[in-house]
Amino acid sequence: MKAALAKPDPKFDLVLEREIDVPVSLVWKVWTTPEHLKHWFCPRPWSVSKCELDVRPGGICSTTMLSPEGKEFPNIGCYLDVIENERLVFTDTLLPGFRPAPNPFFTAYLELSPLGPERTRYVATAIHGTEENRTKHEAMGFYDGWGTVVTQMVDYIQGGMKPTA
Amino acid sequence: MKAALAKPDPKFDLVLEREIDVPVSLVWKVWTTPEHLKHWFCPRPWSVSKCELDVRPGGICSTTMLSPEGKEFPNIGCYLDVIENERLVFTDTLLPGFRPAPNPFFTAYLELSPLGPERTRYVATAIHGTEENRTKHEAMGFYDGWGTVVTQMVDYIQGGMKPTA
Repeated sequence: MKAALAKPDPKFDLVLEREIDVPVSLVWKVWTTPEHLKHWFCPRPWSVSKCELDVRPGGICSTTMLSPEGKEFPNIGCYLDVIENERLVFTDTLLPGFRPAPNPFFTAYLELSPLGPERTRYVATAIHGTEENRTKHEAMGFYDGWGTVVTQMVDYIQGGMKPTA
Repeated sequence: MKAALAKPDPKFDLVLEREIDVPVSLVWKVWTTPEHLKHWFCPRPWSVSKCELDVRPGGICSTTMLSPEGKEFPNIGCYLDVIENERLVFTDTLLPGFRPAPNPFFTAYLELSPLGPERTRYVATAIHGTEENRTKHEAMGFYDGWGTVVTQMVDYIQGGMKPTA
C-alpha cells in the first residue's frame, strides 16, 4: 500500500530538483547509511558529528550538525515512508515511534528515479504547515544549503565514497 | 518492513486495554469504514456528522464530532501505519500527505489481536509529546470517552452493524 504524498504547494513548500550523474542505488545508499551520510550531508565547513538512522516508518532519523566553531545542533525525527531506491519520507514533527515532537517544522520527501544506469532524477521537497515556515526555511538557505549538499553528495559518490577532508 | 512503535511511557502516554467478544476482522472493519465508524465513534449523545478515511500511510483520517447542541468539532489527521486486522496508527500532528498540522496533540496506536474467533484483545494507546498533554488528554476524559466508545462499538457489532438511534 503506497503512502499518499501531498502535491507540493508553492505557497507552503520548497522543491529542489536536479539531474545528477550517479546511479539511483548509490544515492539511496549514501542517504540511508550513517557512515556515508556523515561525509556530505552538511554544507562545508559545517559537518555531521553524529548520525543515527533506523530506516523504516517510525524509526529514528537523527543527525547532529557541527558548526565550524564547534557548536552542535541536533536534529531528531523519524521516517514516515521508505521505498528502496525510490522514496524516503521523514519529518521532525514526530520523534521515533511517531511521538509528537517539541518543535515541529517540516516533512521532507526525497524522490529518486533512474534516468539511465548512471544518472538519477533527484527531487527533494520540504513540506510545511504554514506559509511562514516555508518563508523561514527559504531564508535559512534551503536552496543554497540543499543544493550544496547534492553537489557534495555527487562528489562523494563519484570519488568512490571515501571520506574527504 | 514493520514500523517502529514507541513503548508507552506512563508519564507521557495513556493506554486503554480491553478484551471484547467480537472478531478482530469486524473491529477492523468498523474502524476503517466511514459508514460504520459514524455509528459508534463518539460517546452519545455526541455523534459523528462527517467522516473521511483513506486508510494508508499519509491518507486522510478525518472525523467531525457533533455536540448535542449542534456544534461541529472537526478533527483531521493522517494514518501512519496500517496492518490489516492488527495495527492502525494515526496522528493529528500531520495532515494528509504528512504535512505538519496546526495543532499537533497526539498519535494513536490501535492494536488488535485475536483471542479466539469471536474474541479480541483491544489496546488503544495515546502517545503525547509532553506530560502536560498527557494530563490534558486524561482530564478531557480519555478513559471514559475511549472506554464508552469501545462499549458502543461492541454493541454496534453485536447488533449486526445496523445504525442505532
